[in-house]
Amino acid sequence: MDLDFISKLVKQNNTKIVMLVMDGIGGLPLEPQGLTELETAKTPHLDDLASEGICGLQLPIGTGITPGSGPGHLSLFGYDPVKYQVGRGVLAALGSGFDLQPQDVAARGNFCTVDENGVVVDRRAGRISSETNAKLCEKLCSQVSCGSDIFVQTVKEHRFLLAIRGKDLSGELFDTDPQAVGNKPLEPHGISHHAEKTVTIVKEFVDQAKDILADEHPANMVLLRGFSKKPDWPQFPKTFGLKSAAIAAYPMYRGLAKLIGMDVLKTGQTIEEEFATLKQQWNKYDFFFVHVKKTDSYGEDGNFANKVSVIEEVDSMIPRIMELEPDVIIVTGDHSTPSLLKSHSWHPVPVLLYSKQCRSDEVTMFGERACMRGGLGPRLPAIELMPLALANAQRLEKFGA
Amino acid sequence: MDLDFISKLVKQNNTKIVMLVMDGIGGLPLEPQGLTELETAKTPHLDDLASEGICGLQLPIGTGITPGSGPGHLSLFGYDPVKYQVGRGVLAALGSGFDLQPQDVAARGNFCTVDENGVVVDRRAGRISSETNAKLCEKLCSQVSCGSDIFVQTVKEHRFLLAIRGKDLSGELFDTDPQAVGNKPLEPHGISHHAEKTVTIVKEFVDQAKDILADEHPANMVLLRGFSKKPDWPQFPKTFGLKSAAIAAYPMYRGLAKLIGMDVLKTGQTIEEEFATLKQQWNKYDFFFVHVKKTDSYGEDGNFANKVSVIEEVDSMIPRIMELEPDVIIVTGDHSTPSLLKSHSWHPVPVLLYSKQCRSDEVTMFGERACMRGGLGPRLPAIELMPLALANAQRLEKFGA
Repeated sequence: MDLDFISKLVKQNNTKIVMLVMDGIGGLPLEPQGLTELETAKTPHLDDLASEGICGLQLPIGTGITPGSGPGHLSLFGYDPVKYQVGRGVLAALGSGFDLQPQDVAARGNFCTVDENGVVVDRRAGRISSETNAKLCEKLCSQVSCGSDIFVQTVKEHRFLLAIRGKDLSGELFDTDPQAVGNKPLEPHGISHHAEKTVTIVKEFVDQAKDILADEHPANMVLLRGFSKKPDWPQFPKTFGLKSAAIAAYPMYRGLAKLIGMDVLKTGQTIEEEFATLKQQWNKYDFFFVHVKKTDSYGEDGNFANKVSVIEEVDSMIPRIMELEPDVIIVTGDHSTPSLLKSHSWHPVPVLLYSKQCRSDEVTMFGERACMRGGLGPRLPAIELMPLALANAQRLEKFGA
Repeated sequence: MDLDFISKLVKQNNTKIVMLVMDGIGGLPLEPQGLTELETAKTPHLDDLASEGICGLQLPIGTGITPGSGPGHLSLFGYDPVKYQVGRGVLAALGSGFDLQPQDVAARGNFCTVDENGVVVDRRAGRISSETNAKLCEKLCSQVSCGSDIFVQTVKEHRFLLAIRGKDLSGELFDTDPQAVGNKPLEPHGISHHAEKTVTIVKEFVDQAKDILADEHPANMVLLRGFSKKPDWPQFPKTFGLKSAAIAAYPMYRGLAKLIGMDVLKTGQTIEEEFATLKQQWNKYDFFFVHVKKTDSYGEDGNFANKVSVIEEVDSMIPRIMELEPDVIIVTGDHSTPSLLKSHSWHPVPVLLYSKQCRSDEVTMFGERACMRGGLGPRLPAIELMPLALANAQRLEKFGA
């Protein structure tokens, strides 16, 4: 069911939907017969919701595929993440909080090390510190002059964002990153002739960057990847007929939500502040995306105990959502981040959906193995969650007479 | 797996398949922790079949999608209901028992009310009684003269069927229904130039109808929607190599079965009469579609108790099927119609399949939550049931060497 199919069935009413995303919620036991982070956490409120709701495990992209944050969220929002791919440049812009405009071209930059012949000897410049990175970005920003507005924004370690603002720019450029040491950076080159103007600007930028960084060590050159423009995608509020808001502390998720047309609400850095924002803005929207980052961060750190604590903290706030009496609430994640693996993983993600007419299953606990036996099955495609949310909110017309 | 793929694997033998469709069988509990209609019903025979068979929940169209009767049945018959869409006009013809010919064009008509300027003030003419509707249809039928055979057949309340019979007709016309009051009915207009002749006839019909209805109140005009011709689809008996019969009391289901080439058997209005027909005709066919309507009707009425009773009545007749020794029997519905919602719904539909080689699961009761744990899984696409039936009837060749 593509967005267009669903969109044609959408009808209006006054119901409200909350999608609570605990980033990287899925996990693994540390020991073969042990419990996962979510199974370990004491989650009486989520367990109650699981008992009254319908549970399962969802697959963000496909069997065996480990999602990045972008695709993981897009599928939760009902966008097929293989069809709707965000360029790396755009993703870098979203992640760094850069306010990308429709005419801008963005690329992801690496500081690298070249030898006296201009040959790349380290594609990541020895992973310089984020502080050095910030200084170099500032230096480039203040000294480069290419006849267009150029933004060089620090990301972290060796990575930065390059954004070019101007008329008639194109993202159809090949990478300048040769992908392997022992080669010179590639000359900027257009994939199509539409990119001629952009190629000229990028060449100018790279040449000047080379000069400006000449005396730096080890970061004496730049490599550019993933040139791209802001995509012209169907907008979430219009597609699903939902006045929609995003409550997220981190730039990447705020950027993603903005990309598909959600209102991004001002909020704080803590989970508590996010839930306070939900309450304050409750009357103004039909759909709320609430994002909790720290489940993923602790997973990435391999910090099992802290991931458990964050889950328990979120659980303790579930009554604050229920007090608002949402018609539909979905609790899930954008992917698994097992502390054991210290990284995103391909494992299906626990999901629960509660509404008064959800047809409850026999699951009484929100955890990976309990959800496997749930009514949503052990591998529900994540992109089916939005149609299911709309159905439970009684916001979809019947298909065919 | 499309029809063509399956069709190429079909082989012949003497097995018999029964597909028993209890319309709208799926349900919901009235109270949060309660039982659904099917779980409430005492169904010893269906429970026995579930114990010996393999169970699951099937999805007629897709997650969150509420099926109309047409798409719900087409998917049971193995036809992708998104690919094989029936026009509203054709559906109205099927529903009213009109014998639509391949050259005919059908449209769904509404009686409406227009003011002295011809502006629509009520698109449904105050939902006139079915009796008034019948009289008006008769009046139109007897007085209209457009140089083609015109059929105006009463449906109910404000709705009627218009069918035009003649050579070189096309269904490629826009609706004349302006969809909102305050507008005049739209002029008949072709989507393609193939429709020129049909547009002329429809204009003539609408003009005459206006005059004929001028003195009526409130139904003094007509609106037309969903012009369409009988689709040229693969025929069920040929596709699956099954001499096929439909046993259904209601016109809509008889019409749908006929549309895909099944023989529609003469039967009575009661479930008992339908089962008697099955027994009488047992030797003449390979495949029987048996349709029970009242599970859906009582669901739509919100009559939980009566829906339970109909299920129990059907259960009591299961031995009459088993006595005939079908090789494969499937019991399911075309969608859910929870009494709680008084309407079709998106919830997956209980299904059981019994054959001697079905590989039984551990389900011992035919009910929504029991089926969730079944071997067919909690969200089997309904279009996979026909291939599964054929396989269990040992009517499919191996794929590949």
